[in-house]
Amino acid sequence: MIPTLDGKRLLQDLETLAHIGLGSGAGINRIAYSPADQEARAWVEDQMRELGLKVNTDQAGNSIGVYAGQVPHLPPIAVGSHTDTVPDGGRYDGALGVVAALACVRALREAGVHLRHPVEVINFAAEEATLGGTIGSRAMAGLLHPTVVDSMTWDGRPLADHLRAAGLDPATIAQARRPKGSVAAFLELHVEQGGTLDTAGVPVGVVEGIVGIRRYTVTFQGCANHAGTTPMAARQDALVMSAPFILAVRDIAVARGIVGTIGTLRLQPGAPNVIPGLVDLSMEIRGLHEADLDGAEAELAQAAQEAGGEFRHVSRKPPVRSDPHLLEALTAACDKLGLPYQRLPSGAGHDAMCVASIAPQAMLFVPSRGGVSHSPDEYTDPESCVTGARVLLAALLKLDASLGAEA
Amino acid sequence: MIPTLDGKRLLQDLETLAHIGLGSGAGINRIAYSPADQEARAWVEDQMRELGLKVNTDQAGNSIGVYAGQVPHLPPIAVGSHTDTVPDGGRYDGALGVVAALACVRALREAGVHLRHPVEVINFAAEEATLGGTIGSRAMAGLLHPTVVDSMTWDGRPLADHLRAAGLDPATIAQARRPKGSVAAFLELHVEQGGTLDTAGVPVGVVEGIVGIRRYTVTFQGCANHAGTTPMAARQDALVMSAPFILAVRDIAVARGIVGTIGTLRLQPGAPNVIPGLVDLSMEIRGLHEADLDGAEAELAQAAQEAGGEFRHVSRKPPVRSDPHLLEALTAACDKLGLPYQRLPSGAGHDAMCVASIAPQAMLFVPSRGGVSHSPDEYTDPESCVTGARVLLAALLKLDASLGAEA
Repeated sequence: MIPTLDGKRLLQDLETLAHIGLGSGAGINRIAYSPADQEARAWVEDQMRELGLKVNTDQAGNSIGVYAGQVPHLPPIAVGSHTDTVPDGGRYDGALGVVAALACVRALREAGVHLRHPVEVINFAAEEATLGGTIGSRAMAGLLHPTVVDSMTWDGRPLADHLRAAGLDPATIAQARRPKGSVAAFLELHVEQGGTLDTAGVPVGVVEGIVGIRRYTVTFQGCANHAGTTPMAARQDALVMSAPFILAVRDIAVARGIVGTIGTLRLQPGAPNVIPGLVDLSMEIRGLHEADLDGAEAELAQAAQEAGGEFRHVSRKPPVRSDPHLLEALTAACDKLGLPYQRLPSGAGHDAMCVASIAPQAMLFVPSRGGVSHSPDEYTDPESCVTGARVLLAALLKLDASLGAEA
Repeated sequence: MIPTLDGKRLLQDLETLAHIGLGSGAGINRIAYSPADQEARAWVEDQMRELGLKVNTDQAGNSIGVYAGQVPHLPPIAVGSHTDTVPDGGRYDGALGVVAALACVRALREAGVHLRHPVEVINFAAEEATLGGTIGSRAMAGLLHPTVVDSMTWDGRPLADHLRAAGLDPATIAQARRPKGSVAAFLELHVEQGGTLDTAGVPVGVVEGIVGIRRYTVTFQGCANHAGTTPMAARQDALVMSAPFILAVRDIAVARGIVGTIGTLRLQPGAPNVIPGLVDLSMEIRGLHEADLDGAEAELAQAAQEAGGEFRHVSRKPPVRSDPHLLEALTAACDKLGLPYQRLPSGAGHDAMCVASIAPQAMLFVPSRGGVSHSPDEYTDPESCVTGARVLLAALLKLDASLGAEA
């Protein structure tokens, strides 16, 4: 019997999850490790158990359910995402990938099929940036420095407090680490969170990789002075100094085919009758190719200098390219289902980016209406949700065969 | 005997005032109506009485000392300024004009001279913007709406509380009003608070008028979105929208020969990874000629519109031109003393601006080193302080004769 995905059940599961952490407003609040988040995680683990999966919660709070494979000692193919949300979040970001993973295993089980590889459903812990971002997947991939538990989170409490509130021991979080090769492949279905697919009217996005992110600050030091008594020629207005740079960020990003954003700008002293003496801004660029980022960075540093700004590096995450073999499985799955697809980068970070350190990974996107995400207005139509899960299932079946052949 | 200004005593008076309200830091704190401000005002009134002036404190707290004139029923010629300071202010702003006024009367008295007109020394109350600005001179000129006593000040308390703390009755403040014509002329010596005279190396500035000030806000409504997943072409970045306008404000001000400043800029939501969805900025222009301000305003409104901003009027103070006859007295006084002078506008507001509603007025500036003011670093060299007072005395003598002739 051929495994067939139960779209109705998938949508029902999405609906059920959408009511966990739904407060008086329209948004969902399943902040990582909070009671609502734990409630959702427990519900997912119950689903896993109902599907006969062997469930384990690791030291970081990741839920891992294993559906047995036929061939002894083969590492599992993992599918999943996360169920925590940003404050006042939407119902699709993360949740879709988890219920789709459950739906894939449900399809296998109902068809009485066991693959050659075990199949793992993973519900990662604490993916959203609220507590620092991708805590669970970083812990699993061995990317989490032990001191991160002392770092402050959104509510002024250290991460360790949040872990303890969820019944976890901060001292053991590093033990969630899994060795390289212990997972055969990882596939994640997610909503795009951008408007590319929606605008193009394409139902599926095959993610070529997750962009690298480089963050900077630029400081323009002018001279605060009286806005009435200081002639224009005698001014060093920090805001006026910064204006050409604001435009340069846009122009350089466009020319390099990447994105570039100044997200914060602080001006001092900040009175209507005082010339700004200082402007501090934060800037980031994102792109899939290091060469583009290197080129843009050099041009941005020069533009800042020309405008009289001091350019400082803050952080740097390299791009993570999707595994070519997994990409092939995803595109082949789309072809098999007769679905048009678009290859595109992911502009946002995801758990798959971290898992890449220990396993081949690739991601699948479905359209976000209007590109809206991290908002109660986040919306992906039911058909797209089910379509994404069907591609995921088809890719899983392909991979199960091809990964064996490859090895 | 010819009245001669005692420069040494003037500098000694400045020094005495500089120690009233001097805290542990370098700055002077004589916030209007505070105990330190009252201490300074009482000291000035004592000086007035020692000079034989008839002293009156009006309902707004202005101190007025009258040195009798020879001709019955002639209105007084007034000289003065204020002794309140901004928080952590300097020792010259306001104080110089008051001690110079005392020095003028001292010179007359020591020479045994009484002019045809009475001479008034006025120490205006609450000139600095801390409590709203020019409270005393506005009250005297009848420009203070009675409800202003309910308006909130820098410390969150209404003006009325500050008045009461200084022993004044908020209900009677409007009674400080003096009728038009009750003062024959008003002269004010003040430090420039800008760098024009210092840069030009000119010892005296004859103030052609006090600039008009027009304030606006401009709002750029973009669309907040994910800085990673939103392609450059799909963005409505409010900060990028505002950048050409920031440059336009500078360019338009320079072209019109006025000053233009964006002093505050607020960006929302203000996170490194979110495209700015909203920018709100405050802008002001200042100039001596309404035609320049009208022209600049029209161009700024158009520039805002072209950049996608919404342009709103906030407030508008017309320029106040100095009285031509008083200007003539000041320039004649400079010529008599063999002093080079420069005609210039005042970019800041002053008590003289309010007095203009009830009497002819003009101002005299002396250089501020580096144009610095409202700061402990405010500095005018002793020679310039004395020079300014000498011009004031000479102009007073000229006016006493010419105002009679004119009438």
